[in-house]
Amino acid sequence: MKGRPMSGPELTINPRTRSTPFTPRVEAAGVKGYTVYNHTLLPTLFRSLEDDYRHLKLHVQLWDVACERQVEIRGPDAARLVQLMTPRDLSRASVGRCLYAPLVDEAGGMVNDPVVLKLAEDRFWLSISDSDVYLWAKGLAFGLGLDVTIEEPDVAPLAIQGPKSDDLVARVFGEAVRGIKFFRFEPLDFRGHPLIVARSGWSKQGGFEIYLDQPSLGLELWDALWDAGQDLQVGPGYPNVIERIEGGLLSYGSDITRESNPFECGLDAYCNLDRPIEFMARGALERIAETGPARRVMGLRVEAKAMPRCQQPWPVHVDGVQIGRVTSAAMSPDFGCGVALAMIDREYWTPGKRVQVMTPDKPRLATVSPLPFEQFTS
Amino acid sequence: MKGRPMSGPELTINPRTRSTPFTPRVEAAGVKGYTVYNHTLLPTLFRSLEDDYRHLKLHVQLWDVACERQVEIRGPDAARLVQLMTPRDLSRASVGRCLYAPLVDEAGGMVNDPVVLKLAEDRFWLSISDSDVYLWAKGLAFGLGLDVTIEEPDVAPLAIQGPKSDDLVARVFGEAVRGIKFFRFEPLDFRGHPLIVARSGWSKQGGFEIYLDQPSLGLELWDALWDAGQDLQVGPGYPNVIERIEGGLLSYGSDITRESNPFECGLDAYCNLDRPIEFMARGALERIAETGPARRVMGLRVEAKAMPRCQQPWPVHVDGVQIGRVTSAAMSPDFGCGVALAMIDREYWTPGKRVQVMTPDKPRLATVSPLPFEQFTS
Repeated sequence: MKGRPMSGPELTINPRTRSTPFTPRVEAAGVKGYTVYNHTLLPTLFRSLEDDYRHLKLHVQLWDVACERQVEIRGPDAARLVQLMTPRDLSRASVGRCLYAPLVDEAGGMVNDPVVLKLAEDRFWLSISDSDVYLWAKGLAFGLGLDVTIEEPDVAPLAIQGPKSDDLVARVFGEAVRGIKFFRFEPLDFRGHPLIVARSGWSKQGGFEIYLDQPSLGLELWDALWDAGQDLQVGPGYPNVIERIEGGLLSYGSDITRESNPFECGLDAYCNLDRPIEFMARGALERIAETGPARRVMGLRVEAKAMPRCQQPWPVHVDGVQIGRVTSAAMSPDFGCGVALAMIDREYWTPGKRVQVMTPDKPRLATVSPLPFEQFTS
Repeated sequence: MKGRPMSGPELTINPRTRSTPFTPRVEAAGVKGYTVYNHTLLPTLFRSLEDDYRHLKLHVQLWDVACERQVEIRGPDAARLVQLMTPRDLSRASVGRCLYAPLVDEAGGMVNDPVVLKLAEDRFWLSISDSDVYLWAKGLAFGLGLDVTIEEPDVAPLAIQGPKSDDLVARVFGEAVRGIKFFRFEPLDFRGHPLIVARSGWSKQGGFEIYLDQPSLGLELWDALWDAGQDLQVGPGYPNVIERIEGGLLSYGSDITRESNPFECGLDAYCNLDRPIEFMARGALERIAETGPARRVMGLRVEAKAMPRCQQPWPVHVDGVQIGRVTSAAMSPDFGCGVALAMIDREYWTPGKRVQVMTPDKPRLATVSPLPFEQFTS
């Protein structure tokens, strides 16, 4: 995509595609592309996909991920409701933890894959991917007559990602941030206001997510990090499709859909069928677990010097028969080949299997790889 | 916006922002702008907003509104569930009707405002605006233990809008279409396949919506209408923001949100509190009805020769105090002024009231108008 002319249709922005507390700075930083995620703007391009990728791996970036909306569930039945929605055992989780938790319906379909922040024994934030979990939770709570309050508070996460994240965030929030463990959070002071700071984020380069719950502080927060990071070469960024495919991070809506179950998405570790917990997908997941899934998301290394943009799923063929489909793809400068995530039928998901990806311009040869790719890197 | 350079950030398209059966033709027609609606591409610009508006009012357009997803609810408890979700009395509706129906939660908040198609006594399609009604319905059905099946079938509506719609659609579907009454539908043959054809659509220029339930027929359907309409000057289109504001059509996500109740949105006629029906918002709506809403969506005629794009809500002031906010706005060539939809506090919603709209470049004077505007047009 290097040198690709900026010729795509523009995104028409209106109140329905919500702007964020950081949008003015994102625009000032020269945003060239957006997507819409949870009815909210999410940047997708500043310089070029490759330049933004390289910068992420070398330096530190600010990501406006306010589109990661929080569904707050609190009250006497809060823990029960959250557990009903996920097969991951949350019963022993302590306050201050972030827990990746697939949300699965009674048929085994993936509804969302949020990070759950346990704020108190009876108060949770579900930091969601792109579907209206609020409505599902509201429907369940009403139908079951649960004693919970469900809200979508005006919280705007700002991610700081990249190898210099600790240095940058420590300058603004103090040295305490270095002690925050992976997938833990702590409230830390910013200008007299406590903000939740979590060591998390949608890249494999390390970093933090700051949950801004006071939108009026948005520009101040961005500027504080921006100004403090000048000598660290801080720059604007976003969840980079090249880096996240290399890292094996699946995107809800593309790689994970309602039509897929957690085993197909490789989320077996988060399906605690052996624990005495009550979740609505139990029956469906036990049935699927008996035989195992019929297909699974795998990595593909694609023989390519350049890759078209993956705008729609691409069929994957073996001997002219479709055996799967690619749902995310990019050219990887560091791997020196195309990388893709693909849902592959069971008979063909063996690592090393040779397949054909039916990219729009021509078929391309590819090799099935485990996820994450790193295990397979020479 | 005339002559505005195409300089906005592009929309990054991927499998999560679903393409439609009509996307290849939309692209071939030169689409310049998109939004994302129900996780699906929706065109927003072809030539210019004004040219597309004029063409819509004079001729006939094809709109790719596949983003109007259908939530199908069927089974013994289907009628009960759909009625629970809306304060509109659906009990006497006959099969073959389209019913605009606000969906309202137990707190009185607007969840969506679909057109409900009654396909059978026990089978409904909710043709939704931009929120995941599927998840709400699934949560309710699970929680209440209802005997229903809920699905989002792969149905892609194509709208034909404009004064020549009857002529165009009759050429492809036969003269029977002329007999379809407003907000009624009939299955009509297309190449041996019955398609639901409804007299409906999100403009005031008349027309139809064809519910394509066989995606592989998408290009054939588009081409048949396109080819048949050459002498009618058929063109590509989309729900046009100028025309729909003039017509007083509210957009869910901008003018209507979860935080608003149906009375605030002027939907009193669809709140049948006096009927013996069971819907979950009854308690909340009865409480609101006692005192009446504290604010309401009104029209504004804005004194302007040009209007900036409304990308975020604009405050509305009287004597320097905020008394409302604009959520949609455009320059109206036919009205010769700016037109806007605004949520206005009760003390100020009287037609004729003078207010100030705080547009980003400068304040603009405006006059409160009833909706639809037509009543006030000279």
